[in-house]
Amino acid sequence: MFLAKVVGRVWATIKDPKLEGQRMLIIQPVTPELQPTGKQLIVLDSVGAGAGELVYCCKGKESSFPFLPVEVTTDTSIVGIIDELHVRRPPKEPAC
Amino acid sequence: MFLAKVVGRVWATIKDPKLEGQRMLIIQPVTPELQPTGKQLIVLDSVGAGAGELVYCCKGKESSFPFLPVEVTTDTSIVGIIDELHVRRPPKEPAC
Amino acid sequence: MFLAKVVGRVWATIKDPKLEGQRMLIIQPVTPELQPTGKQLIVLDSVGAGAGELVYCCKGKESSFPFLPVEVTTDTSIVGIIDELHVRRPPKEPAC
Amino acid sequence: MFLAKVVGRVWATIKDPKLEGQRMLIIQPVTPELQPTGKQLIVLDSVGAGAGELVYCCKGKESSFPFLPVEVTTDTSIVGIIDELHVRRPPKEPAC
Amino acid sequence: MFLAKVVGRVWATIKDPKLEGQRMLIIQPVTPELQPTGKQLIVLDSVGAGAGELVYCCKGKESSFPFLPVEVTTDTSIVGIIDELHVRRPPKEPAC
Repeated sequence: MFLAKVVGRVWATIKDPKLEGQRMLIIQPVTPELQPTGKQLIVLDSVGAGAGELVYCCKGKESSFPFLPVEVTTDTSIVGIIDELHVRRPPKEPAC
Repeated sequence: MFLAKVVGRVWATIKDPKLEGQRMLIIQPVTPELQPTGKQLIVLDSVGAGAGELVYCCKGKESSFPFLPVEVTTDTSIVGIIDELHVRRPPKEPAC
Repeated sequence: MFLAKVVGRVWATIKDPKLEGQRMLIIQPVTPELQPTGKQLIVLDSVGAGAGELVYCCKGKESSFPFLPVEVTTDTSIVGIIDELHVRRPPKEPAC
Repeated sequence: MFLAKVVGRVWATIKDPKLEGQRMLIIQPVTPELQPTGKQLIVLDSVGAGAGELVYCCKGKESSFPFLPVEVTTDTSIVGIIDELHVRRPPKEPAC
Repeated sequence: MFLAKVVGRVWATIKDPKLEGQRMLIIQPVTPELQPTGKQLIVLDSVGAGAGELVYCCKGKESSFPFLPVEVTTDTSIVGIIDELHVRRPPKEPAC
């Protein structure tokens, strides 16, 4: 999964029927230090995330699991809202 | 999913039989500011998108869901036409 | 799917038995303007493509669909030979 | 699969129910020489890895296999802890 | 699939039980001219490849097919050993 911030939203009238009623958000992937990294994506939201929230997203077929038994046509979904994160910078070590 | 513009079309006589009758379009992935980003792709169209339209595409196995029960041989498909999008630039914040 | 040119071929005696009898080609992904883009790959051929031909390839699990009911061990396959393609350069537009 | 170091952890109260009770770690992909390479990711842990440990991760649908029969919503998981690794630098050879 | 050279090996005592008894190799993806390209990966070996051998690897769910009926937790596997390869450099052509 990867970290991201919710930065926008998309509306579409004409779409695959399996996407009806799904909220589609624009997210910006970020590093644990919250710096933007990589391209913005359109994702489905399975947890009720709001604008500006720090979330984590799941890619691939698994991103449709939260919507089962409906097989939603998605390749990336928000699956959690981050409360807290701790990161330790890896020390430079010699090869083990 | 990712944003894209429809920029062309492809014709093929010799192809996998599961692709018979499918319209194949060339799309250019774009940022929410509509700047080209990344490589152009050949995609199937499940919603009737036309040249120049702003669409969003789904990758992977899920991209064949709109064509079920036929298991179409595709890895990327247009699944919606964008009506409107809003993006908020993420503010530079200190680590939370 | 993505555009590519057939640029070579690979022979292997020792291989996964599900690949027996499959022709393995080397392809160079190209832009719609036929410029090389990205790494060369080894692919299976489901349509009888020849050296130098412009083809399009499908990635992922779906790339094994043309070979069903055999579940061939492939992650990329040629699924069509391009007859013709038209591309319109996207105009630089302001955000919609 | 790819090599990585465990560098942090993530806590989330609101998340997909299939992720309840799963430990979520932040990992930094590394080269066999233990240099950071590519983006940090959030992963599930199927083997009890601790901070600073050298592990290898599996991507895609297969990353949920260690958690079966529960179909966990993950796209990357730690599937082993490295005891030892040996790497030979490839000699520069002429084309065969 | 992609070309690679076997450059090392990994040992792990603690790992997903579905990986028990599987040989895990480190491979360096290479171009058809045998130049290193991209990151080294940890892969399973379904064909008995040795150090220094030129192989081709399959990614994704399909990489577990050689090990069926066991559903091995892998995302990349060696599926063949290259005997011989021929590559034709694509000529620079005008758009067709």
